[in-house]
Amino acid sequence: PATEMAEKAQVHLDNLTKPRGALGRLEQVAARLCIIKGSLELKQPTCGAAIFAADHGSALDGVSLYPREVTAQMVYNFLSGGAAMNVLCRQVDSVVKVVDVGVDHDFEDAPDLIHAKVARGTKSFLREPAMTREEALDAMMAGAKVARELIDSGCDLLIPGEMGIGNTTSSSALAAFFLQKNPAEVTGRGTGLDDEGLARKVDYIKGALELHKDLNPCDSVGVLAALGGLEIAAIAGYALKAASLGVPVILDGIISTAGGFVACRICPEALPYFFSGHASVEKGQAAMLKGMALEPLLDLDMRLGEGTGAALSVAVVRAAVAIFNEMATFESAGVIGHED
Amino acid sequence: PATEMAEKAQVHLDNLTKPRGALGRLEQVAARLCIIKGSLELKQPTCGAAIFAADHGSALDGVSLYPREVTAQMVYNFLSGGAAMNVLCRQVDSVVKVVDVGVDHDFEDAPDLIHAKVARGTKSFLREPAMTREEALDAMMAGAKVARELIDSGCDLLIPGEMGIGNTTSSSALAAFFLQKNPAEVTGRGTGLDDEGLARKVDYIKGALELHKDLNPCDSVGVLAALGGLEIAAIAGYALKAASLGVPVILDGIISTAGGFVACRICPEALPYFFSGHASVEKGQAAMLKGMALEPLLDLDMRLGEGTGAALSVAVVRAAVAIFNEMATFESAGVIGHED
Repeated sequence: PATEMAEKAQVHLDNLTKPRGALGRLEQVAARLCIIKGSLELKQPTCGAAIFAADHGSALDGVSLYPREVTAQMVYNFLSGGAAMNVLCRQVDSVVKVVDVGVDHDFEDAPDLIHAKVARGTKSFLREPAMTREEALDAMMAGAKVARELIDSGCDLLIPGEMGIGNTTSSSALAAFFLQKNPAEVTGRGTGLDDEGLARKVDYIKGALELHKDLNPCDSVGVLAALGGLEIAAIAGYALKAASLGVPVILDGIISTAGGFVACRICPEALPYFFSGHASVEKGQAAMLKGMALEPLLDLDMRLGEGTGAALSVAVVRAAVAIFNEMATFESAGVIGHED
Repeated sequence: PATEMAEKAQVHLDNLTKPRGALGRLEQVAARLCIIKGSLELKQPTCGAAIFAADHGSALDGVSLYPREVTAQMVYNFLSGGAAMNVLCRQVDSVVKVVDVGVDHDFEDAPDLIHAKVARGTKSFLREPAMTREEALDAMMAGAKVARELIDSGCDLLIPGEMGIGNTTSSSALAAFFLQKNPAEVTGRGTGLDDEGLARKVDYIKGALELHKDLNPCDSVGVLAALGGLEIAAIAGYALKAASLGVPVILDGIISTAGGFVACRICPEALPYFFSGHASVEKGQAAMLKGMALEPLLDLDMRLGEGTGAALSVAVVRAAVAIFNEMATFESAGVIGHED
């Protein structure tokens, strides 16, 4: 049925007043949405974003450029609407929920804050598993619940965002483990490490992979628990729930992509619901995207995370839907079409 | 003063709650707009697009896949709002004017149509100059007038669009001549030529370059008249007028980029006002962009022209302005910033 719907969508696209395939990726996005919806009736998506925030044991080991307190400080920034993710979500009329799934700080209630703390950050995976298996599953369930709530409230396009000082380290560790890569190949500068800092980060991940080398790669939740983060687990659950409800998900940078990647390891049937919003500067992201055969929509040298690249790419998705719905056909416009 | 404004813009960007440079090209776009406006007070641009339509002598020689009548048919499609360019301009609230600068058809009056016919298409540049020098200048003036009108009506970001069966051939000829490239290096499949059609197109351009080999490359208007099109000349005038009035211009695919490229040959001071909206599949565009040191904002495998890639990229420009204007600073948000 996916192939059949793809063909029907292409027939429609080929009747529109443009040379065949001339709208490139826009046509692909429209066709993929038709497959996901199982229909040629596309509507402009209503977007929902959730920023999952959590702390990391590695941040206490001095791997990151910013101190761990910044995670909580950025949560307040999200709640007051001043972060890049807030700005870019406003541009595409997306709600932004902020989910404390593991920040080492106690937050008061706030309108857009969801309390779902599983632990006060992960343990250092250089010395022990970052999470227990139960914590990882609880974080996944927390993410799934948020996805369900957003979808129940009318969202039909979900963005997973994140905040957590130390979470590129965790994402690179997951990429290195699952893809069997040398950590140096999938580790970047995060918020801006210099050469020395980058070398320390790579060594840290190498040490962790050595400690956890007996993990069973088929036990995806076990690997997630050992090397992941609470927000990465939450994103995996969020993405899986969205896919299971037939709702597309736009992955963002390396952390969000790590969450989507783990989701696909757990349940490969989720993959057709995932889009990649942008190519991050963090090189581990490209490796995981390749592993999922996903091509990013944008490439703007961004490396902020939070969900920003995914939010920005919503404009491309909207354009694809508008093209599919609003363009005249050769017949309706009285334009000479293709020869066949 | 440009350097000074760039520094001031960067100081502001570096104070926003994100790692330095983490928003990549968005930061560059915002800084470039500050330089253009000579101010750190950016406002969301009001967008105006003009689609310059004209016919080409080469289309009568069978170089193109579509018959020449399609130019006029597409003008009607633009006027009734059914073309891809209309759809994408609606997405970014841009007005779309359609300018008959040289279509071989008589149009009735219509609300968004501007009559500015200089000739009923160009001559075949395989046998004679496509235009007289006077025609090229008249078309440039027509484009300049449209730019002025759009700006007078409140637009402060202009998109040059185009329609003209045969106009990729003309654009590739201009690229080959000015950049001293073998035509095969800068000629693409246009609306979808097969290998044989592409080889014919390359031969056609080679023949034209041979005929016009004594042109003085410093006489940019002379070269434009010999190898260009009425819509390409109009775009050059439109882009030059916008730049002279301090208004940025987003170039689109190979034809629009050829217009911008000729504008820069005539007046290099216009270049700082130009952005490149997207990387076209037509390879001549990349060569001209390299010649202007412009990097496209999007790369979505598009090759439709009309202005579509530029219109789509307005979302990126809007995002850049919003980031610059709306993000909290480290100080205002109480977030620990950079160490220095």
